[in-house]
Amino acid sequence: YEIHKALMVRNSYLPAETKNGQRISVMGNIELPEEVVSLLDHGGDGIGLYRTEFQYLSRPDFPSENSLFENYKDVIDVMGHRPVTIRTLDINGDKAVNYIRDNQEPNPALGLRAIRYCLRKPDIFQTQLRAILRAAAYGNVRILLPLISGIEEVEQAFEQIDEAAETLEKQGVVYKRDIPVGVMIEVPSAAVTADILAEKADFFSIGTNDLIQYTLAIDRGNRHVAHLHQPLHPAILRLIKGTCDAAKANGIPTYMCGEMAAEPIFAPILLGLGVNELSMNPQTIPVVKNAIRSIDTTGIDGFMEEMMRLTTPNAIQDLLAHQFGSVVPRIGLSEQER
Amino acid sequence: YEIHKALMVRNSYLPAETKNGQRISVMGNIELPEEVVSLLDHGGDGIGLYRTEFQYLSRPDFPSENSLFENYKDVIDVMGHRPVTIRTLDINGDKAVNYIRDNQEPNPALGLRAIRYCLRKPDIFQTQLRAILRAAAYGNVRILLPLISGIEEVEQAFEQIDEAAETLEKQGVVYKRDIPVGVMIEVPSAAVTADILAEKADFFSIGTNDLIQYTLAIDRGNRHVAHLHQPLHPAILRLIKGTCDAAKANGIPTYMCGEMAAEPIFAPILLGLGVNELSMNPQTIPVVKNAIRSIDTTGIDGFMEEMMRLTTPNAIQDLLAHQFGSVVPRIGLSEQER
Ligand SMILES: [Mg+2]
Ligand SMILES: [Mg+2]
Repeated sequence: YEIHKALMVRNSYLPAETKNGQRISVMGNIELPEEVVSLLDHGGDGIGLYRTEFQYLSRPDFPSENSLFENYKDVIDVMGHRPVTIRTLDINGDKAVNYIRDNQEPNPALGLRAIRYCLRKPDIFQTQLRAILRAAAYGNVRILLPLISGIEEVEQAFEQIDEAAETLEKQGVVYKRDIPVGVMIEVPSAAVTADILAEKADFFSIGTNDLIQYTLAIDRGNRHVAHLHQPLHPAILRLIKGTCDAAKANGIPTYMCGEMAAEPIFAPILLGLGVNELSMNPQTIPVVKNAIRSIDTTGIDGFMEEMMRLTTPNAIQDLLAHQFGSVVPRIGLSEQER
Repeated sequence: YEIHKALMVRNSYLPAETKNGQRISVMGNIELPEEVVSLLDHGGDGIGLYRTEFQYLSRPDFPSENSLFENYKDVIDVMGHRPVTIRTLDINGDKAVNYIRDNQEPNPALGLRAIRYCLRKPDIFQTQLRAILRAAAYGNVRILLPLISGIEEVEQAFEQIDEAAETLEKQGVVYKRDIPVGVMIEVPSAAVTADILAEKADFFSIGTNDLIQYTLAIDRGNRHVAHLHQPLHPAILRLIKGTCDAAKANGIPTYMCGEMAAEPIFAPILLGLGVNELSMNPQTIPVVKNAIRSIDTTGIDGFMEEMMRLTTPNAIQDLLAHQFGSVVPRIGLSEQER
């Protein structure tokens, strides 16, 4: 087993390419700058999700532009030419910041979070955006907007990014505005209107944990309803497929972060739907890369058509196991996306 | 104004029929049996949503089959041949029952509620179902299943209804099994898979308040995000349209309860999408009936096509106001669906 594991980690430096030559990037999710080393050690092709909440949680007040900038630049410097996807502040219910939350929300998962919070507090948003644009001058940076529910929020966020760039321009500071700005697809309304969002976004990143939580109205942290948290629910597959199709029609790529991306047995479906990049806990990267390298996706379109006609999560899981179960392991979902 | 109001209430006994002859039923939501009188006084064509939580909330323990039966029969007797839509127990976070909730859920809106609770507690569900089937022998009763997220829950609920009927059959009690059993479309996954659910359900009832809440990930009780609670979001209109289309394709009707049904300015859209029945706070029935009687839906298909192409709630609202604002008032949303 140790030899198998060592081989897998060694092979993880190779690209994730199926037996028939379909390629997909396998990236890592990080929260702290020091996780970058582990991400590279595990063969990550880049950072698919850099969560930026930590710097806001570990202090008595809001972090300065410079401290954010230096933090981002440290990560970017190590990553070199590889993509670094920085998600803007995604403050939420289960990771509440004391100095922000002066009130208790009865359903924090449905409350003033993420992009909603940032658009209501432009000063805080501007500080972070300036730090990101400055750091972007030193590498391959993307901005990712969390919890988007409609096109108006995307447009407002783009205006905020433009404003941050104008401020830096006036100040004569080194920065880069011309970077991809993507939309997280994790609110059902965003998936249902992906064709509208695709006209503005440079890429999509599907956040499967929240998407499943809202689409099925299941709190994934609540053990009483955990049995209903089904990634293979036909509604989830339809929303993922609709998102990928809308992205393709508009010539933009679709990425995925969240537990679903990290589960090897789901890889054939994600390859079949045309997801371009998977991002996960760095430790899982070798397992997923290895799984993808053992899959043959010849004829996957027919398989997907058959799958999309099924009506229950169990039937979908059975078909998946029947077709790919002998090649790809099911490791059990391993990570909490936040 | 008083004369206008009196005329409107008098006219509310007439059917809700547009100028060009399109008919829609206008029903009332009730919670207590005594509300039936007000419902009939306001011209309600039936009960579109009978909330059954009250009997569970006003007692120290679970109500008996007989006390539920008598309560339902009281309502049915007054309603005569008119439809009485009994929603099965929809215990939820904001109306928690003390003797049920032994634990606090961090996001009750996404927790063990409604059909999920009933399927986990078959004894409690069986008691209510037997009471409904017994009362059904005395009138025009429909059963409505709340918070359905997928076909498996519908199948399990149908099995429970069959079991309740078998028990009554063995006991030699008067009952009626052959009644319509409908599915509430209020979880996004149900709307997204309406074509699958329509094969099993006898009717749909769209619960707009929860559907909007989950689809947009907005707690409608949270004032910090109230501005994002948009019934005219293109994602909401698409999900309602998809539900109506799936119902039509399977030859079943679509009803609607929730605030959206009670807002006269939305009536043209709901008529255009082919909703067959609206249910609301009894006091609002005359206003909505009056609005429908002042609308002409000739050429509504072209209007709907134009509307479905719009990308923002504001653009949709402007088009609606431009086309129907002079005929139909906007009264402001008036009722909380629970
Ligand atoms: Mg999220
Ligand atoms: Mg509801």
